[in-house]
Amino acid sequence: MKVIGIDLGGTNFAVGVVDEQGKILAKEQGKTLVQEGPDAVIKRLNQAVKNVLSNYEVEAIGVGCPGSIDHKLGVVRFSPNFPGWHDFPLAEKLSLETGLKVYVENDANAYALGEHTFGVGKGYDHIVCLTLGTGVGGGVITHGILLRGSSGIGAELGHVTVMPNGPTCGCGAKGCLEAFASATALKRFVQEGYERHKDSLLFHGKKPSEVSPEDIFRCAEQGDEFAKSIISLLTDALAVAIGSFVNIFNPQLVILGGGISNAGEKLLKPVAEKVKDHVLPSMLGTFEIKLSKLGKDAGILGAASIVFERMNKT
Amino acid sequence: MKVIGIDLGGTNFAVGVVDEQGKILAKEQGKTLVQEGPDAVIKRLNQAVKNVLSNYEVEAIGVGCPGSIDHKLGVVRFSPNFPGWHDFPLAEKLSLETGLKVYVENDANAYALGEHTFGVGKGYDHIVCLTLGTGVGGGVITHGILLRGSSGIGAELGHVTVMPNGPTCGCGAKGCLEAFASATALKRFVQEGYERHKDSLLFHGKKPSEVSPEDIFRCAEQGDEFAKSIISLLTDALAVAIGSFVNIFNPQLVILGGGISNAGEKLLKPVAEKVKDHVLPSMLGTFEIKLSKLGKDAGILGAASIVFERMNKT
Repeated sequence: MKVIGIDLGGTNFAVGVVDEQGKILAKEQGKTLVQEGPDAVIKRLNQAVKNVLSNYEVEAIGVGCPGSIDHKLGVVRFSPNFPGWHDFPLAEKLSLETGLKVYVENDANAYALGEHTFGVGKGYDHIVCLTLGTGVGGGVITHGILLRGSSGIGAELGHVTVMPNGPTCGCGAKGCLEAFASATALKRFVQEGYERHKDSLLFHGKKPSEVSPEDIFRCAEQGDEFAKSIISLLTDALAVAIGSFVNIFNPQLVILGGGISNAGEKLLKPVAEKVKDHVLPSMLGTFEIKLSKLGKDAGILGAASIVFERMNKT
Repeated sequence: MKVIGIDLGGTNFAVGVVDEQGKILAKEQGKTLVQEGPDAVIKRLNQAVKNVLSNYEVEAIGVGCPGSIDHKLGVVRFSPNFPGWHDFPLAEKLSLETGLKVYVENDANAYALGEHTFGVGKGYDHIVCLTLGTGVGGGVITHGILLRGSSGIGAELGHVTVMPNGPTCGCGAKGCLEAFASATALKRFVQEGYERHKDSLLFHGKKPSEVSPEDIFRCAEQGDEFAKSIISLLTDALAVAIGSFVNIFNPQLVILGGGISNAGEKLLKPVAEKVKDHVLPSMLGTFEIKLSKLGKDAGILGAASIVFERMNKT
């Protein structure tokens, strides 16, 4: 069986034909151009679907989309990245265009399904997934099922409080994990510290706005105190949050994905060490923290796995 | 169908015959006397079971027991309140004595099942339960199933971090919910503040060690600043934790039980108000926080509901 996975972002989209082993047989990427309105986006997605389907037949389409999604109806209730998409019947519209059955899921949930179906979470019934990107997304599989919650908007793991009265998060609350462990947060730490740390390695040849998460990890490893302090804020916050997730879900695996996780062991090692201070003694040894291996196609694979998950159920 | 529920605590136990409506038809209570060893405890439980069964026939026994429980085998792996009960086959031993099938569950999980079967959580598939007693226990029903986690020790909601570097919790970590929202924590706040607040209403005729949670709520309502500051610590911590639970589980209901919840609206109102600052805007209006109505028999009812839950599954 082959399916199509669509990773639909506010800026870019990617469409891929995926087989049951998670191999991507054909792929096309493009600009979403949200400003042209939902119908234009649907047309663009349909064209990309047509292109990748030239040599393949598929069962259905899975779409991972940020925001609040009614996964049963395939409706985008609202999505900060898609202004104007209020109660937009994405599945229905795309299905009409393509002639294929379409399933839609929140992108972080799709990511967790992808880890469960094709990634390091394969074979595990209890996994907690974090995507450390522009924001912090979360997805949870507990007892083998995707945790969506009563109205389908649960598993917002980026918005647990790790520091009451900490920095204000994009959501309006204070001290969320996302306010420490996202690329946005790292950028803010760099900007805020610039005046006091002008001599930091981070600013050798770069303006504050040009400093990337990779730069921070690299400079921290070279001993730069300011960079080290930012990495500490990041890893402390992650350790507090993951400790709570472990005590709550008693998972077998915690999986770190998203751009910041490209730091690899430089991220994983301090987090794994610090988490020990935040879990119950009885939890020690019951879980592992791993880096995602889905790579750049995590979005397509997650979206494709939506179809495999739904079809397994029926 | 009638069943027996046993609320097995480290100090006291209670045994009741419970019908499908949650009515307690017969009840017996006693001292656990853990120090006499597990076999003596089993014998005492068996005698109590015999006594309540004089007029009734039951299907099976459910036991709610603190600690780390293997719910499949009915084995107490370890329990801080039952020293020496390492890998103790409670279900098997009690079944041999009573001749009845015995199911065992962690007491906080049993409590959540009780709320789901007989309490304010009846009819809801997504509930988060907190018992605010000597410690803080947690139980979660998500998508209609009890969240036990991969090794059965999950839903330890009392041990999420609400304040990194906060007071040290009994578990060894810092700033757990339990370190703010348990009777033990309130006692500690009273003791620690005594020297600076000797003129507080709390100490009019009482030694610090004699001050109860009820006293603190009462004096806070009378305007006592020290009592109010303690209630603030309690309600702030609960709001932070509940906010995270809502963002994680997207539940329909959060239920507060245990001794501290006897404060009723004096607890519920400030917590419900403060929680709004810690949930995602999209979560507002999707959940309610309610006080448990199971009362003093919550333990027996929770234990009885273990049987109803297991039998529904088979």
